[in-house]
Amino acid sequence: MNTQQRVGTGFDAHRFVSIDDGQPMHLACIEDWPGPRIEGDSDGDIAVHALIDALLSASGLGDIGSMFGVGHNAKGAGMTGSSMLTEVRELLHEHHIEPINASICIIGNRPKFSPRRSEAQQRMSDILGCPVSITATTTDGMGFTGQGEGIAAIANCLVQLP
Amino acid sequence: MNTQQRVGTGFDAHRFVSIDDGQPMHLACIEDWPGPRIEGDSDGDIAVHALIDALLSASGLGDIGSMFGVGHNAKGAGMTGSSMLTEVRELLHEHHIEPINASICIIGNRPKFSPRRSEAQQRMSDILGCPVSITATTTDGMGFTGQGEGIAAIANCLVQLP
Amino acid sequence: MNTQQRVGTGFDAHRFVSIDDGQPMHLACIEDWPGPRIEGDSDGDIAVHALIDALLSASGLGDIGSMFGVGHNAKGAGMTGSSMLTEVRELLHEHHIEPINASICIIGNRPKFSPRRSEAQQRMSDILGCPVSITATTTDGMGFTGQGEGIAAIANCLVQLP
Repeated sequence: MNTQQRVGTGFDAHRFVSIDDGQPMHLACIEDWPGPRIEGDSDGDIAVHALIDALLSASGLGDIGSMFGVGHNAKGAGMTGSSMLTEVRELLHEHHIEPINASICIIGNRPKFSPRRSEAQQRMSDILGCPVSITATTTDGMGFTGQGEGIAAIANCLVQLP
Repeated sequence: MNTQQRVGTGFDAHRFVSIDDGQPMHLACIEDWPGPRIEGDSDGDIAVHALIDALLSASGLGDIGSMFGVGHNAKGAGMTGSSMLTEVRELLHEHHIEPINASICIIGNRPKFSPRRSEAQQRMSDILGCPVSITATTTDGMGFTGQGEGIAAIANCLVQLP
Repeated sequence: MNTQQRVGTGFDAHRFVSIDDGQPMHLACIEDWPGPRIEGDSDGDIAVHALIDALLSASGLGDIGSMFGVGHNAKGAGMTGSSMLTEVRELLHEHHIEPINASICIIGNRPKFSPRRSEAQQRMSDILGCPVSITATTTDGMGFTGQGEGIAAIANCLVQLP
């Protein structure tokens, strides 16, 4: 019996900036999606943020707020999703926790995700050191994601404790 | 240590048709719920769609859009949830991936799900070849599900790689 | 190969009462959060409710409605989340099902969760008899959680069948 496996879930949602400032959208560790970008103290990468909460939750190590802080003066302010996920991987490594796999569902009208799914999955998998799969869907014009106000992500993961 | 298990998550949401066209609602592989039905290029079975995304994500095999296409001319157009789930089961089988179990949460005001939960679970379990559990809840009149605009589902699964 | 593990997911959402009646909010087995409280036939503890649905779903034992009923005259009416979770733990024990871990994500503007995360996790872990992790996030003012209408929770769990 392997009782050293743990599951975790995480969720995040952010607004799109209301006026395109010419900066690219960061999502799923790809940093050159067409704008308007996603708002946030960090780079707004909700796919990474949801995954980090899932990983920390499965590992019993707090959440993204306790690790990176909240607000413009926090440690995480200005950090990219890639750099945050790298730090989380290192934290798990220090605790001898091995991520086994992760699954993320992105919910929003844009970007058109499927043409770059493989690239995003490869980047996130390379950083985390385990398979990361990403699906994307919409809400048929309903709710804040359907009306284009913002974008959300649900993440799940499986980790192995020492 | 069993590191060949993988978790997956999926989400889907669709509108109810605004005018009842007399066709039954398809949901969780039951095809005779009272209308108005759920919109969609296929039969709108959001429980199946969320589950398929979870299964494909856990298995690293893309998502429902990459498998069945999107739009009225796609392969999945007009397909029932049951037939889509059957194809996904066959795809997993080809890759020697065994679904271990699945759990789906349906979020919406209707149909009244609990009287037919056992029937739905049995149908989906028979098709997928593993236990599929389904819970149902509402959002107290809040958001697009609470206002009766549409219906959503979150799915999780555990699969065994070869 | 350990094929006796099962995953489960659950979701719940409730409104905040529109007028503060002086009663504390119950959330994640802490029963003295500042009001206005969460509405509900029971004590409105959406973190517990989502977790119970995840546990029952993973275990193939129905859902919170089939176990505790729905409405003001139901068995669950007036019950605290703590007492409901205790009963679910006993039910799992009767079926020789062992919860391995649980992960809950709370989505809402209040309460400010992080200062009491450890306390909530400890209470829920003590009741369920396995690690329960809790993360909390907001939706940037979007949707019913962002507008302060209500609060939602997504839960995941891993259980071991006999």
